Amino acid sequence: MKKTSGEAAAQARRIVDGKTKPLGSLGKLEDIVVRLAGIQDRPKPVAEPAAMLVFAADHGVCEEGVSAFPQAVTAQMVQNFVGGGAAISVLCRNHGIEFRVVDAGVAWPLNTMGKNEAPSELAASPLFMSETSGRGTANFRRTRAMTREQAAEATEHGRKAFKRLSAELGGAPAILGLGEMGIGNTTSAAAIVAAACGRPAAECTGRGTGIGDEALAHKIRVIEDALNLHKPDTNDVLDLLSAVGGYEIAAMAGAALEAAEQGCAVVLDGLISTAAGLIAAGIDPGVKDYMFASHKSVERGHTLALEKLGLEALFDLGMRLGEGSGAALAINLIRSAAFLQRDMASFDQAGVSEKL
Amino acid sequence: MKKTSGEAAAQARRIVDGKTKPLGSLGKLEDIVVRLAGIQDRPKPVAEPAAMLVFAADHGVCEEGVSAFPQAVTAQMVQNFVGGGAAISVLCRNHGIEFRVVDAGVAWPLNTMGKNEAPSELAASPLFMSETSGRGTANFRRTRAMTREQAAEATEHGRKAFKRLSAELGGAPAILGLGEMGIGNTTSAAAIVAAACGRPAAECTGRGTGIGDEALAHKIRVIEDALNLHKPDTNDVLDLLSAVGGYEIAAMAGAALEAAEQGCAVVLDGLISTAAGLIAAGIDPGVKDYMFASHKSVERGHTLALEKLGLEALFDLGMRLGEGSGAALAINLIRSAAFLQRDMASFDQAGVSEKL
Repeated sequence: MKKTSGEAAAQARRIVDGKTKPLGSLGKLEDIVVRLAGIQDRPKPVAEPAAMLVFAADHGVCEEGVSAFPQAVTAQMVQNFVGGGAAISVLCRNHGIEFRVVDAGVAWPLNTMGKNEAPSELAASPLFMSETSGRGTANFRRTRAMTREQAAEATEHGRKAFKRLSAELGGAPAILGLGEMGIGNTTSAAAIVAAACGRPAAECTGRGTGIGDEALAHKIRVIEDALNLHKPDTNDVLDLLSAVGGYEIAAMAGAALEAAEQGCAVVLDGLISTAAGLIAAGIDPGVKDYMFASHKSVERGHTLALEKLGLEALFDLGMRLGEGSGAALAINLIRSAAFLQRDMASFDQAGVSEKL
Repeated sequence: MKKTSGEAAAQARRIVDGKTKPLGSLGKLEDIVVRLAGIQDRPKPVAEPAAMLVFAADHGVCEEGVSAFPQAVTAQMVQNFVGGGAAISVLCRNHGIEFRVVDAGVAWPLNTMGKNEAPSELAASPLFMSETSGRGTANFRRTRAMTREQAAEATEHGRKAFKRLSAELGGAPAILGLGEMGIGNTTSAAAIVAAACGRPAAECTGRGTGIGDEALAHKIRVIEDALNLHKPDTNDVLDLLSAVGGYEIAAMAGAALEAAEQGCAVVLDGLISTAAGLIAAGIDPGVKDYMFASHKSVERGHTLALEKLGLEALFDLGMRLGEGSGAALAINLIRSAAFLQRDMASFDQAGVSEKL
């Protein structure tokens, strides 16, 4: 992966500093545009087109009763995404963010052909694509979630999804938001974060869609059991994915890598996309320079994972929905930063006196 | 002022709770839309049109050397606002926020007619209006900033500015952002906040456009001297304005009151607009129910002032520019909240299973 351009970043900083405002007064918006300039090797970087890929998959660990919602909700929500009624659909549609839903391994109910595939009306939607290595992972409290080959293949599926999106847009987007859906996936993500950060499961595990105290204690035990059983090699992220991962998490990691290789900034969302960020960084640490954090999720473990990536959340709105909802809001902030860099006048241009 | 509708707010909350997402998972976006529903008496509130009024005025206290920039910058920045090169111009233009600049009391350089009026090419711009009671306040370290009559008149000028904006839009906007420009105005705002919150000047005073330690200590002494000299009656906000206020601060208070009376939500920005919020609340406490905080400014005193209004900042991006820049970003968040309320499907509509 190409290193981001220190020269373009420095040039961007000089432009920022000459704008008609007190030095540094746009705070984090200034840091955003300087990083984006480095990513794009362009002192006045662009934020369009912005796109969102939402990866969906199911998790065998649901059998252990780790979620407040039934597994069928994953498939139902994919239909809601494509139908336009989900939060991320609404945010992308109203804010002009290109939106695609990727079936990365949903356990669709058996159809009349005896197969568990996405319904044909869904498959026909231009918003939908299928890039999958399996129909839901195995229950990782009992056996590995997937094989090592499936883990590698699932990251390739994420790369393919980004390539297909780019082809549809006539070129790579400037910014990619990463979202997800998968009942049970905070269990998988918390296990990845605990292993990757070397922290106890209890410090990394939250209430997901809203479980109570007893269910939370159970969820922590499930993660501890799985990590004790598989003893994943934390220096080998394919081993980690194979032990406790999910197809959507693997695919998000692949999409992040492919995006970065094409010079596209990657905006993480909450716990799950950040766990995917850890996986991507395990494959190529250079990808971290292409990543932006968005919100600070209510989910425990999220901040630990961001710290490990050297990232800081831009805002904290008490959100814990996933789907890419926090990333969509962050895309608007990144756009604002890019607009300011492109359009603000310098002291010279505006004839404004500088500091005394 | 009409009380906001508890019934519409409760109905909005029920709608939020039925949307396809875990209960409460959109965090503060949910609280925003519930409050906006109460303000508009409409369970699915609207966010358009959104508008920004930026009030500019000069401050006699500049003589005391309280700012890092010369006073002439106020007039220069008004031209930059109207010319489109300032941060707030760029944000409003790119995010579809109706933008007007109000000359509330700028000390324009003397023109060829021997008057200090805005240049005629500026006065001709549809983005510019003049609603002023004076050309810069007096130096409040020596004498009151303005008379009580001027303070009252300046709030009326703010009301007029909102009415003119509404007439131009064919009706009141749904959301009004309040921004400002005025070299020296953090000194005035810090004095108002210190007096209104009953706190020492040192706790309320920050570096404004970027002064050093010595200048900060001096700025604090100037505020202490002024409050000791005038001993403003903190239960009488016109007295407070007259003692240490500014024309733009008075006008922003008036605009906030007029907006609220017309059912328009008011989005505060940083220290100065929040000081204006305190003035408005001193005239009619009902206005607080129409207000949203936006960002947490770096300026000391801002959080104290927000607490006094019962408001909490939505985000903290380390900004300290003013102009309404934080309010503009918050308007995008409020829009997102309104879009979600309008467009998200309910569990019933989407055929998604509810919590186990």
